[in-house]
Amino acid sequence: MTNTLLRDEDIAYQLRETAQQLRVDAIRCSSAASSGYPTSSMSAADLIAVLLARHLRYDFGHPDAPGNDHLIFSKGHASPLYYAMLKTAGAITDAELLSYRRAGSRLEGHPTPRLPWVDVATGSLGQGLPIGVGLAKTGRDLDQLPYRVWVLCGDSELAEGSIWEAAEQAGYERLDNLTVLVDVNRLGQRGPTRHGWDTGAYARRFAAFGWHTKEIDGHNVMEVDAALKAATHHAVQPTVILARTRKGRGVKAVEDRGGAHRMPLTDPDEAIRELGGERDIRINVTPPPLDLRPRRFQASPSKLPAFETGSMAATRTAFGQALAVVGDLRPEVVVLDGEAADATRTEFFADAHPERFFECYVAEQQMIAVAIGMQVRGWIPYASTYAAFLSRAYDFIRMAAISRASVRLVGTHVGVAAGQDGPSQMALEDLAGLRAVHGSTVLYPCDANQATRLTATLADVSGISYLRASRGDTPVIYGPDEEFPVGGSRVPRCSPDDQVTLVAAGVTVHEALAAADLLADDGVSARVIDAYSVKPIDAATLRQAASETGRIVTVEDHWPEGGLGDAVLEALADGAAALPVVQKLAVRDMPGSATPAEQLQLAGIDMVSIAAAAVDLVAGRGTG
Amino acid sequence: MTNTLLRDEDIAYQLRETAQQLRVDAIRCSSAASSGYPTSSMSAADLIAVLLARHLRYDFGHPDAPGNDHLIFSKGHASPLYYAMLKTAGAITDAELLSYRRAGSRLEGHPTPRLPWVDVATGSLGQGLPIGVGLAKTGRDLDQLPYRVWVLCGDSELAEGSIWEAAEQAGYERLDNLTVLVDVNRLGQRGPTRHGWDTGAYARRFAAFGWHTKEIDGHNVMEVDAALKAATHHAVQPTVILARTRKGRGVKAVEDRGGAHRMPLTDPDEAIRELGGERDIRINVTPPPLDLRPRRFQASPSKLPAFETGSMAATRTAFGQALAVVGDLRPEVVVLDGEAADATRTEFFADAHPERFFECYVAEQQMIAVAIGMQVRGWIPYASTYAAFLSRAYDFIRMAAISRASVRLVGTHVGVAAGQDGPSQMALEDLAGLRAVHGSTVLYPCDANQATRLTATLADVSGISYLRASRGDTPVIYGPDEEFPVGGSRVPRCSPDDQVTLVAAGVTVHEALAAADLLADDGVSARVIDAYSVKPIDAATLRQAASETGRIVTVEDHWPEGGLGDAVLEALADGAAALPVVQKLAVRDMPGSATPAEQLQLAGIDMVSIAAAAVDLVAGRGTG
Repeated sequence: MTNTLLRDEDIAYQLRETAQQLRVDAIRCSSAASSGYPTSSMSAADLIAVLLARHLRYDFGHPDAPGNDHLIFSKGHASPLYYAMLKTAGAITDAELLSYRRAGSRLEGHPTPRLPWVDVATGSLGQGLPIGVGLAKTGRDLDQLPYRVWVLCGDSELAEGSIWEAAEQAGYERLDNLTVLVDVNRLGQRGPTRHGWDTGAYARRFAAFGWHTKEIDGHNVMEVDAALKAATHHAVQPTVILARTRKGRGVKAVEDRGGAHRMPLTDPDEAIRELGGERDIRINVTPPPLDLRPRRFQASPSKLPAFETGSMAATRTAFGQALAVVGDLRPEVVVLDGEAADATRTEFFADAHPERFFECYVAEQQMIAVAIGMQVRGWIPYASTYAAFLSRAYDFIRMAAISRASVRLVGTHVGVAAGQDGPSQMALEDLAGLRAVHGSTVLYPCDANQATRLTATLADVSGISYLRASRGDTPVIYGPDEEFPVGGSRVPRCSPDDQVTLVAAGVTVHEALAAADLLADDGVSARVIDAYSVKPIDAATLRQAASETGRIVTVEDHWPEGGLGDAVLEALADGAAALPVVQKLAVRDMPGSATPAEQLQLAGIDMVSIAAAAVDLVAGRGTG
Repeated sequence: MTNTLLRDEDIAYQLRETAQQLRVDAIRCSSAASSGYPTSSMSAADLIAVLLARHLRYDFGHPDAPGNDHLIFSKGHASPLYYAMLKTAGAITDAELLSYRRAGSRLEGHPTPRLPWVDVATGSLGQGLPIGVGLAKTGRDLDQLPYRVWVLCGDSELAEGSIWEAAEQAGYERLDNLTVLVDVNRLGQRGPTRHGWDTGAYARRFAAFGWHTKEIDGHNVMEVDAALKAATHHAVQPTVILARTRKGRGVKAVEDRGGAHRMPLTDPDEAIRELGGERDIRINVTPPPLDLRPRRFQASPSKLPAFETGSMAATRTAFGQALAVVGDLRPEVVVLDGEAADATRTEFFADAHPERFFECYVAEQQMIAVAIGMQVRGWIPYASTYAAFLSRAYDFIRMAAISRASVRLVGTHVGVAAGQDGPSQMALEDLAGLRAVHGSTVLYPCDANQATRLTATLADVSGISYLRASRGDTPVIYGPDEEFPVGGSRVPRCSPDDQVTLVAAGVTVHEALAAADLLADDGVSARVIDAYSVKPIDAATLRQAASETGRIVTVEDHWPEGGLGDAVLEALADGAAALPVVQKLAVRDMPGSATPAEQLQLAGIDMVSIAAAAVDLVAGRGTG
């Protein structure tokens, strides 16, 4: 099928036929897999048929073409429809379609970027639209290219707050290159949605957030076509098309029936007959103009800040100052912040590179979503807020790893050392959460020069990375030209006759060094390891210390679970040798308000507590 | 001050004076602390003065009185205002007020339930309103008491999606016992909010979500009074009062100035003079009627389900069936689900106890918020969805621990064993996340009878607890009358000459048992520990196994970080003895789609992989 001049009724016929093919193929692949959600695909088939044949501009042979539109299935469980669409567009073969959900197939249960046409993984509801908003913003404000962003949402997922963070940003920023199609099939996984087919309820909400809205019959292809056309031509506002549809459309046994969500059809052959059988329609999707090139900024020579050894500075400040310089050196770097730039110190970057700084307000999920959208188009995002509040976006971060996204997270005000604000503002679980993200890198500098170097290093780290930055000033102990590779460590105190090793990171490095002084006064020789790279951790240095000193004290400003101590133990648990005696010091009681120094002492992670634990180990007295 | 008959101008004078006292005391306590956010307190002082003097019904001498209204400072950083209010109500002394943010003081940087008048900790924005919605629902539908819920929000936090999840529920469910006061002071932490003083922008959004809205001058006490009165009398809709205010109101040096958010005033004495000096106003807040008793359900005799040893059943199904029975036995039990009750199996409870089942739709943050609200009033909530999607509410869970809340989380479809749906639906970081919650309990049953018992046990577990339930059927290996205490373990395979210990939980218990059979064929005697209580873990049994067998293989359907393996290592790292040789088996590569059996094999956590690792350990070959 090609888009030659046709009468409306011919166009409508071909679109309906295409939609039926998408339905049939959705049924075929999920039946072959004995798994999947065909009925949620069938409701949206007309929407996707019209989009593919008449509005999408995409070169399936060149998925990285800068001018390509972006299409995100926010309702990732409609993957049978997505893959049927790829087949109709000639991107995959029928044989590959039928590999759906098999071991080794690229056609996973929910789409992931293992397929080159998929920008981001979906399957956790309410994430595709937020990321789509990020891509629309990238297109208009960074790439400055005319591509459009199309998002297919389910109605169930409109209950997610993340949808409304995204709606707020898109409406406020007037992202008119964004069109959202909502498949209002009124049935969620378990039963009816709150609003059923009351598309007006959704329209009022989106309109209040500044959107252009259209309510249509989602099975009338010409109505769909008109709505998509109107969306393309509507300026100054994003458009949401609220399409009333029927789940399982076209097959009596399942159409608009509850309880048919999570399963293939029981009689696929009959269903396919009912839909008019298999078809062999191929759509030549209109490609974008070839000569489009994204806007890029210019690098300018600059030099990372240098802090004088012996002076005092906060690692968050070093991070902020360094980031501004990284912005000079690396023109692809963009920075997002959650209305805390004065505290996270990204304000240095905002001042230096206002066009590449994005205020995301107090909407952490949306901040991460925009970062994910920007990296899809090759930008290098850093996203920062109080580390405690990154937990708000944990599902987005988890999914970003499945998206194979590269996003740099920076969390400040970590641990009890944050002081008087109290536990709500203290990240005490962030190391656990971020270590447990697939392929992540977790860094925790203890001084300003180390923070500076690690900030620069992050630009070249792929995957999800995290820099843990402290609120308070700490002594500068490393020179400005020292290197701190990912996976490395520093051993600021070491002698051949060390009796115990103190493993610390961030603020506890300074406590450990002071503890080593106390211990020396008591005649105990202690090694100190600065494990600034918490993941990957420097296993070789830890093993050597374990074998040479036989005793290890780990000390961290974090709950005992999942943080530095666990990282050290994991490195030593290599299955090859017995582990040394290990004592973990960490925050065990719920903190309140107090000064940073009081907090460290109350938590038992200050120099005195460390020294006492080391003395006990050396004396053979466990405290466990 | 008492509420005798007064002319309007006298009332207005007294209310203004009360507000000035609140401002002065907010300044005094934050200046004494050299820390805190007085300007965000000063903007809302008139709102709180009017509420306290004229509308709140609360017995400060009996904070647990069932008829008490509930007042939540969603903008927890206005804690100086909250504490000044407590002083004005006679709940705390001036001396205690001045202990603000000191070590040991109950007056933390952000309010927590260390104070008996605080229902829940706030300080992470966008959480107080969602929990307030939960309390309003509890009041109307569970307690059936006429208490009102008042929430003070900041304007910045309206950017959080969680606010709109809450707005959707409150509007749709017509919670007219809920009033939200928004302190629209137009300035966030770093700078202006998106909408500034455009209260109409917020009003349109709330109205679209079904709310009654009022836009007022938040410094005109009679306007505030009229709005609060209207809210109290408005039926069928929750009310939001959008009050235009000025940050730092009343003190020229800071009023409506940017950059004055995160600090006490530089000249507090001058500011206090400008506000008319200290006052000594005491409000006798109107208590609620004394005879109010909450509705409670009746217990009925019932018996936990029993599964036949050797049969097959999914732990999620056992959980669901058991939960319905727990509902019979424990009339305070309530259940919430995120539109997945068919999959999580809470549908059994929904069918048996429809009045105590709450469909929360696809809004996980709001689900947890409602659970937190319900437990404030003594109900025993279980909240369940796919374990992967509990990550969406991680910040709420973290804060719930600071709230000293008791909430039971149940996550299903865990690990790669979830199978074909792919990684977006597989919780692989949930053990790490939930272990790293302060005071949490983490349970992971391997068979239906164990799941049944643990489901019942959870009702009496305080704090945040988590049950990890599997999608697929597993063999029933324990009898229906066996006990599984929190902190315990089972050792289904043990002999005095064991050469290696396999520590497993959930689905990997069955793989470990099969591996032990394989190893026996090879002449290797392996102990198997079922660590169903991942936190607290049975350290004594693990230490005994370590000392008796000298080698440990841990195997878990989870990323390597923060899960079972780390829990085992932590238990052994007691500082008293060297650890044995340990090899951790866990999911290390990003899974795709495959059958559950294929997934376990591909991840290297199936019986063959376990046996191979054990053989290597016994032969002294590490794989680390």
